[in-house]
This record gives sequence, structure tokens and C-alpha cells, in this order.
Amino acid sequence: MNYRVVFYVIGLVLQVEGLFLALPLIVSLIYQENSWYFYLLPAIACFVIGWLLSRRKPTHETLYPRDGFITVALSWLVLSAAGAVPFVLTGDIPHYIDALFETISGFTTTGSSILTDVEALSKSGLFWRSFTHWVGGMGVVVFIMALLPMVGASTMNLMKAESPGPSVERLVPHVKDTASLLYTIYIGMTAVEIICLLLSGMSLFESLTLTFGTVGTGGFGVLNSSIGSYSTLQQYIIAVFMILSGINYSCYFLLFSKKIKDALKMQEVHWYLGIIAISVIAITINIRSIAPNLPTAFRDALFQVGSIITTTGYSTADFGKWPAFSQTILVILMFIGACAGSTGGGIKVSRIMILGKTIRKELATIVHPRVIKKIRMDDHIIAHETTRSTNVYIAVYSIILFLSVLLISVDEFDFTTNFTAVVATLNNIGPGLNMIGPAGNFSQFSYFSKIILMFDMLAGRLELFPMLVLFAPSCWARPVKLSFRVKNLLPWRRG
Amino acid sequence: MNYRVVFYVIGLVLQVEGLFLALPLIVSLIYQENSWYFYLLPAIACFVIGWLLSRRKPTHETLYPRDGFITVALSWLVLSAAGAVPFVLTGDIPHYIDALFETISGFTTTGSSILTDVEALSKSGLFWRSFTHWVGGMGVVVFIMALLPMVGASTMNLMKAESPGPSVERLVPHVKDTASLLYTIYIGMTAVEIICLLLSGMSLFESLTLTFGTVGTGGFGVLNSSIGSYSTLQQYIIAVFMILSGINYSCYFLLFSKKIKDALKMQEVHWYLGIIAISVIAITINIRSIAPNLPTAFRDALFQVGSIITTTGYSTADFGKWPAFSQTILVILMFIGACAGSTGGGIKVSRIMILGKTIRKELATIVHPRVIKKIRMDDHIIAHETTRSTNVYIAVYSIILFLSVLLISVDEFDFTTNFTAVVATLNNIGPGLNMIGPAGNFSQFSYFSKIILMFDMLAGRLELFPMLVLFAPSCWARPVKLSFRVKNLLPWRRG
Repeated sequence: MNYRVVFYVIGLVLQVEGLFLALPLIVSLIYQENSWYFYLLPAIACFVIGWLLSRRKPTHETLYPRDGFITVALSWLVLSAAGAVPFVLTGDIPHYIDALFETISGFTTTGSSILTDVEALSKSGLFWRSFTHWVGGMGVVVFIMALLPMVGASTMNLMKAESPGPSVERLVPHVKDTASLLYTIYIGMTAVEIICLLLSGMSLFESLTLTFGTVGTGGFGVLNSSIGSYSTLQQYIIAVFMILSGINYSCYFLLFSKKIKDALKMQEVHWYLGIIAISVIAITINIRSIAPNLPTAFRDALFQVGSIITTTGYSTADFGKWPAFSQTILVILMFIGACAGSTGGGIKVSRIMILGKTIRKELATIVHPRVIKKIRMDDHIIAHETTRSTNVYIAVYSIILFLSVLLISVDEFDFTTNFTAVVATLNNIGPGLNMIGPAGNFSQFSYFSKIILMFDMLAGRLELFPMLVLFAPSCWARPVKLSFRVKNLLPWRRG
Repeated sequence: MNYRVVFYVIGLVLQVEGLFLALPLIVSLIYQENSWYFYLLPAIACFVIGWLLSRRKPTHETLYPRDGFITVALSWLVLSAAGAVPFVLTGDIPHYIDALFETISGFTTTGSSILTDVEALSKSGLFWRSFTHWVGGMGVVVFIMALLPMVGASTMNLMKAESPGPSVERLVPHVKDTASLLYTIYIGMTAVEIICLLLSGMSLFESLTLTFGTVGTGGFGVLNSSIGSYSTLQQYIIAVFMILSGINYSCYFLLFSKKIKDALKMQEVHWYLGIIAISVIAITINIRSIAPNLPTAFRDALFQVGSIITTTGYSTADFGKWPAFSQTILVILMFIGACAGSTGGGIKVSRIMILGKTIRKELATIVHPRVIKKIRMDDHIIAHETTRSTNVYIAVYSIILFLSVLLISVDEFDFTTNFTAVVATLNNIGPGLNMIGPAGNFSQFSYFSKIILMFDMLAGRLELFPMLVLFAPSCWARPVKLSFRVKNLLPWRRG
């Protein structure tokens, strides 16, 4: 284990978080909430601890996938643990486990909430809650890589650990430049949506918070009715930006590099948009009779489909009251998720495509045993490694899914609630069906179940393996050496 | 395509079915039901058509996996289509689609029923319904192979297509001897259970029908209360034989070959019994407070766990009223299923083990990138081919599962009903939760949904690929040649 990199990166993550905490502090000052010091104190603590941890730059160059996974998993745990503190201090969410649930839900861009009354929160609390979505959307470690030059080529394993998709690729030769580019597109998208919402007549505060929730595909709103009480135009703006945020960022990169043909040829994007189109049409027809008119049915279908497939979780209609057919479509979309390389969660369209192509290949081999077929996507041959890891991904995913449903069933809620609660957290969506539908929330679960669901949210956001490696005993086979290194990091032991 | 083998085998299957129809005919005569000719007519029809189809012995030796799949899939369709006729003729089940549902449910050893009142059926109808379980349990094509010497080594592909498990092995060098051996063990097990039930004071009719449902892991009973109204001893006998029927038959073969050490070392059996033990203990504790006393809680837990993991589907308690934790355990057991090479359905314990070992290997590769690890089971190295096809199996399984849930959701029942209906049919279990729980039945589904569920039952029993290959267009690329051969089979066209 490359512990020095682990501590270094966690140190940087804490410092960045200290920096980010300045934003709710400013909001608190603007709205004269007298709670600014509850953001200042954690910010200072983050800075000091982060500075201590990252004092020594790592010199050991090699960074194995394992190190990347461990670093990113621990970074996210530390990020969430620290990010939850202001909620407790300000009294917005008095119990730490609840605050941690809400913070993990924020950073992982899930949007599942334990709050029964969102509107009771302070403005600064609401801002911080939504801002966690923005940070988690593109990833905090990627953010650091965009800012700082790091140990070299092997930082790719950090990026791989935090970025979603079956095979993470560099857009440009250097990892740092790829990270910068991703954040440039991300900030650009954020800015455009804020401007659009401001032009539609929305307040600055709402424009900011809702945009964070949209582009990060998070789903925390600032009203109890989520997006339902905004104007038709505003609902359409958010729907469009949700769908845009679920597109593979490579597509935007190609567009800006003027490789428009390549951008338009991306199979994953075709499938993604195709699935959205079919689902919207099917649901529009299905809910036509219960909606006041056809345009409303279409708008509700588009918004909910966009929200669920991108795993955002905003809602303009209580789909818990929709017919079973529409609900089942939404449950299937929950599993599919957005494109790889986007801020969205779920299994990812490209993984579903690889699975489909693997099945077709297997069937073809049965029918014509002598045919040798390669699996292709966008004219590239998919590496055997990628199909294998996709299959393993699905297997791990299913096991975590069923074990989690079993564990949270001790709370004795109904099967649909338990099943969709795990599906909604593991895929970073937010709401599920029944008790945790758009009109409900996660407050009634026991702390035990909340801890299971927190694990699911992190496992979902980091694509399972980082969280699992964290629990692999063989990873921690040398505790003596670890303790030795920890001692080395303490300032009074050095020099 | 080796059409001659296809027609030959289907012909034999029909003749065997004609033979089997003699049994309910006898039952009808004994109980003086005056419906014996409703079994005689289909039996004669089966014989004649079967004789026509199988007149010409296939000479073409090669039988590809594809041919095996197609032959077995079509055999099962024909078997079910013909087997449903007596139910319609006797008036036991007036509508053909319902009769077909019940027959497919029987042959695939599912045990899902569309009957609201089982006790209203004629004795001969009940007998035939239960006997289909016995035929389907070990497989009709395997039965034929046990009786007749066929085209040689390549009949292995027929056996593979009908026998459950990730890798079907010959117990002895010849396929025919393996098939005979399997049926010998099967008939032995059947005889022992019948004797046990007779000794416990059960009537001959019930001993026979319930045994067919047990050793075939089917689940059709003859009373509306399933097994609930039988004595404690009888419930224990059935529970034990259900669990025994879910064990890999290789284990019994090893026992009878005096290779007791090898038999006791089978990892799959250890896991299977281990999962049962843990589930029974967990459920006993969980339902302790709602059961009249501890022994009843234990007995109910043992019976239901044995029934669900072996995918039999008998019940002695309405687990729809159990706590969510126990229900979730049962839902997970529905997926796991019995051992490979048994009469039980589901994903199979060995596939779950291969998945688990693949995941462990993948994690080990992440933690120690340079370690090369092989997946082992019972001291054998699992072929790469087997792990790959296991992964593909799970992928196909998931897709069929979700598509089916979507399609049957048009009936507008609740999500738990739809989800568990597909799980119960695809895994050949029988009952699910809510509307189709142990106290309910499948009668309320539309004919469209019933057809989807029939497909799921067949896909589950034949382990997905035979049914899928049937729908692969490339399999039917030469229709001209097919029609030519069909003509050749008609007697008035020949020599």
C-alpha cells in the first residue's frame, strides 16, 4: 500500500472542503443567519488537519489500482464525515447519523433525504446541502487533479476509481488536462443553467441550488414539493439540463474539439436518448387518462424519465400514484442509469450495451459454433478485460443489492419500500416507491438501515470496487507498517 | 440444422407422452369418472403423430449444441401443448390457455396454478397434473435417452440442453448409462417417499401425487391448503424429501458407487445445506413470536425454506403473513435455487458459488495485481468457459426478469405481485408474494401475462438458452430446406 499518497490526497481533499465551506458561510452572512461560525470552525479544522496530512509530498511514484481505490474510498468517507458537521452544529439536522446520511446522499449525488420538512432548513444549510451535489457530481479527487500536478501517469488509477463507467479514458494525453477539461465543461454547463433559470425569473438562490442538483444529477431541492411548484418553462429547463448532464462528457469534448461527426456517432448517447424517447412516449400514453391534458402528461413523463434515468431524483409528479406499467418502466430506468463518463449513476448505458452485445455473441456462438465474433462499440473492439469486469460488476451489484434488501428488512417495512430504497440509493437516484416515494422520505428507517443505505450510496457512486477493497482483509495485511507511517506523519515525531 | 433429429426426438417424446397418458386413464377407470376416453383419444393421437415423426431414424451423426437446444425446446413445447388437451376435454380447465399454463407449470416443475379451487378437479385430472411434475423433474428427453440407444456421443448436447447446471457431466462414460442411472436414482427416491407416506397413514392417491410433486420439486398439491392440513410427521417426511431432491444427483451416484468420501466432500452440497440451516435458524427466531410454539416455528421455517430453495412451492404456512425479514430471506432463496444436477430450479447453488469465487478472484487481482488465481471447485479448476457462460447466464436472466416484470405490469397489479410472479415462474417455484402468495393464485392475470409467464417457466426450466435460441432468427435461416424435409416425412410422399 502506498500510504503516503493516501494521506496526501485525503489531506488535499480536506483542504478543498475547507475552501468549499466558505460558500455556505457567505450565504449565512448574506441572510444574516448568525450561524457563520458553524461553517468557519469546521473549515479551519479541515484546513489544519488537511495541511498536516498533506505536508509531505509523496515521492513513491507507483500507484496501483488498489491504492487508487483505497485513496478514493477513504477520501469520500472523510469528505462526508467532515461535511456533516455543520448540519449538526447549526441544528439543521441535530443527529449526526442523520446528518451523515444527508451529506453522503449529497456528495454521492443520490438525493435521498431523511428530512420531513426541507423548508425548515436554514438558507446556508440548504445551500451547503445542494452544493455537495455539485462537488460529488464530477468528483472531488478529479477536482484536485485538475488543480494540482500530481505524481505522474499513475494518477490515472485515482481518476479511474472516482469516474463512472466500465472503461475510463483520457480525453487528452495528460490526466491533469483531462481533469481540467472535465471541470471546464462542468462549470460551463453549470453557468448556462444558472443563467437560463435566472432569465426564467427564478431567484438567484434557487437558481444556484437547483442547478447544483441538476448538473450533479443529485436531486436535493429547496421546497417540499421538489420541482412541482415551479413554472412550466422552469420545469422544462431543468428537465433538459438533467438529460444533458447524463450524457457522456466525452461527447461534449468531441463537440468542442470540432469533431462533430465523432460526437454524433457515439453509440452510447444514441441508446441513452433512444431509451429516454421510448420511455417518455410509453409513459405519456399510459398516464394520459390521469393527467389533466396531453401536454401535462408529456411534461410529467419527460421530467420523471429524465430525472430517474440520470439518477437525479427531482420530481414534478408523484409517480407513486402512476399506473404499475409506468412505475415498472421507472424502476427499470433506475437500474439502467445514465451514460458512463457523466455525472449520473446507475449501472450505466454502456454497461447494459456491453452486456447485450455479450449475450448476442454467446447466442451467435451457440447457433454458429465456428464463428469468431468480437464485441465492438463505436468501431472499437471492447477488450476482453472490460467485458469480464462488466460481468463481475453486475454480479457484485446483485449481491450488494440483495444483501442490503435483506439487512434493511429488519425494519419491517414492505418489500417494495425496501427493494426500491436499496435500488434508489445504490443507483444514486433518491426517491423510490411506497414509503420512500416522491412524497415520502427516509426518516423512518432505523440507524442500522441508514448505515447500510449510506454504504450503498457510496458503493454506487464509486462503482462498488473501491468500497469493497476497503473491506478486503488482505488489503490491510500490514498494520504494523501502517502504524509506523502514521507516527511518521505526526509533526512532533519528525526531524 | 439437424432437422431429422429434431423430428425424431419430438416423435419419441409424443409416443412417451401417449404412454404416460395411460396412467390418468387408469385412475379415471378406478374412480369411475367416466372420462377415460378423454385420456385415450389424446394418447392415440400422440402415438400416431409421434410414430409418423419418428419413423425415420436419424443417420446424420453430428448434433451441435444448437440442435440440442432447439430439439429440447421444441420437445417441451409439444409435450406441453399435447399434455394440456385432456384438461380441456374433461372440463377440468375449460380454457386452453389456462390448461396450457397449468401443464407448462407442471412439466417445468413450477407449481404455479391458475386454479382457484384445486379440490374441484377430477381425481384423474389431479393425478395427471401431479404426474407432469414427475416427468418434467428429471426431464422427458433424458427419459428417452435412458430407454433408447441414440445417435452416439453427440447426444450429450441433448442431455446438456435439458439438465440443469452450469456444466453438465456424464456420471459414467456413456450418455445412455448416465441417463439410466439418473432415472434409477429418481425412481428409487420416488418409491422410498411413497412408502414413507403410506406408512404415515396417507392414502395411496395422495402419497403418489404428493410424491410426484416432491421429488420433481414441483409443488402441485391436491388440497386447497397445500400441505398445511397433513400431520406433523407427514409434513416432516415431505420437507426432508424436498431437501433431498434439491441435492446434486452426482452426490447420490457417488454414494451408491461407495465413493462416500467424495460424496461428502461436494462443496455445492455443503453450501446448499449450510444456506438451508442458516435460513431455517434465522426464520425460526424471526417468526417465533407469531407461531403457537417453538417446534411449530421450526417446522414451518424448515418446510418453507426447503420448499422455496428447492423451488418446489408446497406450503404449510402463509408466508405472506410473515415478517418482512423472513419474506426477504425467502425471496433471496427463490433466486439461489437448488443444486445443479438436481430436479430443482433457480439460478443454482453452484452458479452462485462460481459468481462468488469470480468476485473474490477479481478483488484479489485488484489488491495483488501480480497474483494469478484459478477458480476451483471440488479440487477441479473451473474452466474459463464455465465462468463466462455463468456470467452471461446471469445477464440473460436479469434481462428476461425485468422485461417480464414490465410486460406483465400492464395488468396493473402491484409491484411486489408482478416482481415475485416473474421470480416464482422463472425460477420454477410456484407461489410468490401478495396476490400470488401461498393463499393466492395466478388466475387473475390476463392471457397476455399468462403467456409471458409460460415463457418464463420454460426458460427457467431449460436454463434460458434453448428458449432464446428458438427465437434467434439466424437459427431459421433456411426455411426452404425445412419445408422440403417436412414433405419428406409425410408417408404418401415417400418411395
